[in-house]
Amino acid sequence: MERRIKLLGTGKYLPARQVTAAELDERLGLAAGWTEKKSGVRVRHYVTGETAAQMGASAARQAVAAAGIALSELDCIVCASGTAQQEIPCTAALIQEELGLAGTGIACFDINSTCLSFVTALDVMSCTMALGVYERVLIVSTEIASAGLNWKQKESCVLFGDGAAAVVVGRTPDHEASRILGSAMKTYSEGAHYSEIRGGGTMLHPREYVNGYEDDFAFDMDGRKIFRLTSQLITGFVDSLLASAAVGKKQLRAVIPHQASGMALRIMQGKLGFSAEQMVNIMEDHGNVIAASIPMALHEAISQERVARGDYMLLLGTSAGLSLGGIVLAY
Amino acid sequence: MERRIKLLGTGKYLPARQVTAAELDERLGLAAGWTEKKSGVRVRHYVTGETAAQMGASAARQAVAAAGIALSELDCIVCASGTAQQEIPCTAALIQEELGLAGTGIACFDINSTCLSFVTALDVMSCTMALGVYERVLIVSTEIASAGLNWKQKESCVLFGDGAAAVVVGRTPDHEASRILGSAMKTYSEGAHYSEIRGGGTMLHPREYVNGYEDDFAFDMDGRKIFRLTSQLITGFVDSLLASAAVGKKQLRAVIPHQASGMALRIMQGKLGFSAEQMVNIMEDHGNVIAASIPMALHEAISQERVARGDYMLLLGTSAGLSLGGIVLAY
Repeated sequence: MERRIKLLGTGKYLPARQVTAAELDERLGLAAGWTEKKSGVRVRHYVTGETAAQMGASAARQAVAAAGIALSELDCIVCASGTAQQEIPCTAALIQEELGLAGTGIACFDINSTCLSFVTALDVMSCTMALGVYERVLIVSTEIASAGLNWKQKESCVLFGDGAAAVVVGRTPDHEASRILGSAMKTYSEGAHYSEIRGGGTMLHPREYVNGYEDDFAFDMDGRKIFRLTSQLITGFVDSLLASAAVGKKQLRAVIPHQASGMALRIMQGKLGFSAEQMVNIMEDHGNVIAASIPMALHEAISQERVARGDYMLLLGTSAGLSLGGIVLAY
Repeated sequence: MERRIKLLGTGKYLPARQVTAAELDERLGLAAGWTEKKSGVRVRHYVTGETAAQMGASAARQAVAAAGIALSELDCIVCASGTAQQEIPCTAALIQEELGLAGTGIACFDINSTCLSFVTALDVMSCTMALGVYERVLIVSTEIASAGLNWKQKESCVLFGDGAAAVVVGRTPDHEASRILGSAMKTYSEGAHYSEIRGGGTMLHPREYVNGYEDDFAFDMDGRKIFRLTSQLITGFVDSLLASAAVGKKQLRAVIPHQASGMALRIMQGKLGFSAEQMVNIMEDHGNVIAASIPMALHEAISQERVARGDYMLLLGTSAGLSLGGIVLAY
């Protein structure tokens, strides 16, 4: 179902500290070149003191400025991240506080489907905007992946970086073409444990950290199993989504994929038959920034003028769950 | 904006283990009667081994049976809880797995506004249903509050209990009256730190638990500040919500409040001018079950036939954030 919403402005934030592939080779005791070859990431960024809310607020200010509106014109802030700043309250409220909007009443809540959180939030919130429940929504994805890496699992820890991205979404003015043409999300929990952090919630409280459960509080990924399940599903998923939106692959000006890994991006491109010109690949100098990867790549595509108003785009990703999600939109 | 959705079925789950006020008086070294008088809770329930997903799945099976549909007819599962089972993936995927729906592709994600998570999820998901993005949505709130209590803070730890509630929501058939008439949410982050668990996210990783931060991983509440801010805001909030829905207070057959505390319920009733017959109060034998409180009270109101089809209801609560939220609906 079409929804006449428009991406009014985008922003991003990267921590100043750059962590090169060479630095990780050394830290992990690996042969020179292993990290870059395996991950496809030359440099990722780690926080040195920034909180998730501070990073999110920074990206949000840029997005709101790009949208040409005032912060006070927002009526909803959604934090769409795979990680939270603290257990309670939701991160969106902490971003509101960081933005100096404490007394405004702007609604705040979090939406979480791990790496697909931004896609889910845009999908769901576009419906609230189409019905007039909200008018101008700020969606923020802000991730400190570096806090939860497992340094004993070299295949996963080299992939991730920290950062934030934000998008202001509003209703499309008359006579403009911006809209969502179709969306889909599918979750296959046979893959629920292919990528996980088992600890930190109500099943394994932080007080258990010292009782031999250290590894359960770090990210654990079985890349091979994820690859196998995703490979079975992705072609049918994308074909069905594009058909529902009545958009052909060649009509897509840009494909904004989740930046899972360098290899995942290459395989996705080949398997789905997209061209290098269509694929927006920011893996090399950002890494996998969990839910922030898609809005960050979107921000880059817009900033670099790889898309113009009215162009068709596909946001596409996979996430822990295991889920596939995508949105076809006219920018 | 009206949305023609219908609550098709509800369910709840309570752990078998009952924790009486007298037991807590003894555990906390308090005078006999202190806990019940202060909290308004005679008995709450704590898990003895159940996970959040298991409790949620149990409530979900009951809700789906009450709705008269098969589990496979769901096309979306939203976990709307203030706590998560584990950091990654989202709890909804773990509930899908627990329900034996691993291969179905039913979309799964979490929505979190702490104690208002159910209200936010119903508000947002009703919009997706009105637009045909989803047809039949299962919303599950499942909470293990007992994992994160601060036993040094007697005012807060006596309030909470564990449990789950679930609601199946679908589109309203022609010629039926069920619908959402209005909704509102307001967040005032000046109260973001009035109730919180500071640890467990990316700001204070569980590895810091042993470094003198134990209390930061438990629930911390300043009831007096919450009461003061909420008191300033609640009357205007409810008046505005009811006006937007064009429903008068006396037209409400039932008010389903968040079960924050016995005192909060009494004050809310008096301040807002609702009658005891309107207020659905399940505090005494459930305690505050975080986001599960509202759908659990809703389940009780329906099970006890305190509401009939077409009756007007108000779901109303406050949450960490600090947020106020409500939905006016025709059941």
